[in-house]
Amino acid sequence: MAQKTSVCIVGSGNWGSAIAKIVGANCANLPEFEERVTMYVYEEMIDGKKLTEIINTTHENVKYLPGHKLPPNVIAVPDLVEAAKDADVLIFVVPHQFIPNFCKQLLGKLKPNAIAISLIKGFDKAEGGGIDLISHIITRHLKVPCAVLMGANLANEVAEGQFCETTIGCRDAKYAKILRDLFQANHFRVVVVDDSDAVEICGALKNIVAMGAGFVDGLGLGDNTKAAVIRLGLMEMIRFVEIMYPGGKLSTFFESCGVADLITTCYGGRNRKVGEAFVKSGKTIQQLETELLNGQKLQGPLTAEEVNYMLKNKNLEEKFPLFTAIHKICSGSLKPQDLIECIRCHPEHISHCFSRESSLLPAPKL
Amino acid sequence: MAQKTSVCIVGSGNWGSAIAKIVGANCANLPEFEERVTMYVYEEMIDGKKLTEIINTTHENVKYLPGHKLPPNVIAVPDLVEAAKDADVLIFVVPHQFIPNFCKQLLGKLKPNAIAISLIKGFDKAEGGGIDLISHIITRHLKVPCAVLMGANLANEVAEGQFCETTIGCRDAKYAKILRDLFQANHFRVVVVDDSDAVEICGALKNIVAMGAGFVDGLGLGDNTKAAVIRLGLMEMIRFVEIMYPGGKLSTFFESCGVADLITTCYGGRNRKVGEAFVKSGKTIQQLETELLNGQKLQGPLTAEEVNYMLKNKNLEEKFPLFTAIHKICSGSLKPQDLIECIRCHPEHISHCFSRESSLLPAPKL
Repeated sequence: MAQKTSVCIVGSGNWGSAIAKIVGANCANLPEFEERVTMYVYEEMIDGKKLTEIINTTHENVKYLPGHKLPPNVIAVPDLVEAAKDADVLIFVVPHQFIPNFCKQLLGKLKPNAIAISLIKGFDKAEGGGIDLISHIITRHLKVPCAVLMGANLANEVAEGQFCETTIGCRDAKYAKILRDLFQANHFRVVVVDDSDAVEICGALKNIVAMGAGFVDGLGLGDNTKAAVIRLGLMEMIRFVEIMYPGGKLSTFFESCGVADLITTCYGGRNRKVGEAFVKSGKTIQQLETELLNGQKLQGPLTAEEVNYMLKNKNLEEKFPLFTAIHKICSGSLKPQDLIECIRCHPEHISHCFSRESSLLPAPKL
Repeated sequence: MAQKTSVCIVGSGNWGSAIAKIVGANCANLPEFEERVTMYVYEEMIDGKKLTEIINTTHENVKYLPGHKLPPNVIAVPDLVEAAKDADVLIFVVPHQFIPNFCKQLLGKLKPNAIAISLIKGFDKAEGGGIDLISHIITRHLKVPCAVLMGANLANEVAEGQFCETTIGCRDAKYAKILRDLFQANHFRVVVVDDSDAVEICGALKNIVAMGAGFVDGLGLGDNTKAAVIRLGLMEMIRFVEIMYPGGKLSTFFESCGVADLITTCYGGRNRKVGEAFVKSGKTIQQLETELLNGQKLQGPLTAEEVNYMLKNKNLEEKFPLFTAIHKICSGSLKPQDLIECIRCHPEHISHCFSRESSLLPAPKL
């Protein structure tokens, strides 16, 4: 391509603004990119001024990433179609509930060969129950290929330039290089794999496991038990991908999107924290959302519910005893104290539950 | 086998006594085992009484696992050969420096079809430098097959009956069932894999990674960076096994001996703790061993040195930048502040360092 690649960031929250620092700098420095990066910003008034104007004059997103300068070539645009219409690469980084509506606005207005990449963690609820991957929704609505980027990437630490890694899942090898070049930085190391669905699913399922890790903390069960719960959670993540989205690779779970993001989430993170508070306080998840999260919905219990719907439908609850128990605890039909009882005879410990034809994991010896 | 299997535990420290609770109960309850379990105890005088006599009358190892009752069928024996001579299964759980001498004493004194299992974490130094696996030493000296048992198993938590998992590495499938039955308990869940070397190597290499995790904590680098260091450590563990002990399976690293033990060690554990203190205090490892560990040697720096010897010999230091940097920091030739610089361009992030023929991991897309 002699043509320079033009980039639009759809979203300007905490994570969107952090990634704009990297993407903006890369587009300014690398010859394959158009320098000007548009960022769709939902217009708000801040102390009587428009947020887009503040960003375009002070180069700071004072509302969602205060204290950090964005590169001056990142231009805030309050109109979604205007921001996106010239883009070759669209970076989606908005709360997932906005995606269907955004796609409707953008359909037919994009460049013919545009591609998308989703930085959105979590699933959407499929019609009729179960889950829908955000990247699939984008592709379905917009008729463009959609990659994903996930990893152990707390936004503020990325903005501060702390060293970390990330994983891009990109089905089509021809987009791998341009996407890596767009996100790679000295402190933000990118690995591209073709296993896009597994990458995206990791980013949602880890929140279920983190609830379990929080319960273990709340119950005071010690380091061995917490490690066992995290590991069994990881195994259920692998099995879930194996059954529901076949074709994945075991190695993907060793990438930043897998094991690294999982452990960060199970040792820090709000799901773990609320899980611990749930056990110690005896309050409901809803009460804790009100008290600790300002009424915001916690991802873990929602994802656990959607996943449980799918497992129940396929009669698979018994093969996923940890996911199932966590869902039941979150919804109040099981006591946290009974968590360990549910996983003592986990299929991972019992030979005959293994299928020797498993595509991802060989059966253990016994 | 109509014959009952007789078991001897060689060792009676903290971990040996914790495992004696499980092994003793299983031998008392399961028909395939001889009820009487011998435990070789190095004789010491405690308040004027022999430790073996205390154990055999009070059923408590008052020195190494106070507060816990051992099953009464576990019989402390102060003579190594006497304890081991009738055993079909020998469980080795002593500091690794005793192994060669113990094996010399036992050679020719065992039952002809006896087998061994090592619960000893860490390597021995090979003659001429590099590492020697404890299970290999046992097999070489004693001419018996030797399995291993490793996992996220802090001894006191196991003794308290907290739920956890463990991994048995056993090359020969015909011993898998008897070994699982010997160690499996309601709170101690066993998975048997045939990948014995990988299981054992995980138990030693994790301590190198834990030093790195401690440095990150000491430097205050945040959750993303710590997750990246742990993940890159895991990748170097996998590569090390791939190169030095080929034939391993990627799935083994998802067992308790792999990812679970690694995270426990990187979030708790003495190597992490000393690593953090090393950065914050500016003292040497030796000084910290004196101050914090009563002069005991820390595993991480020793293992890092032995591994570095092997990597240097094969001209592989550049492919293992994390292990190499941690060794240099421990030995004083690199500042902890330079750790991240050493792993920014890790081979895991750079395509051409991957061999597509890798037996364990496929190459990423870029």
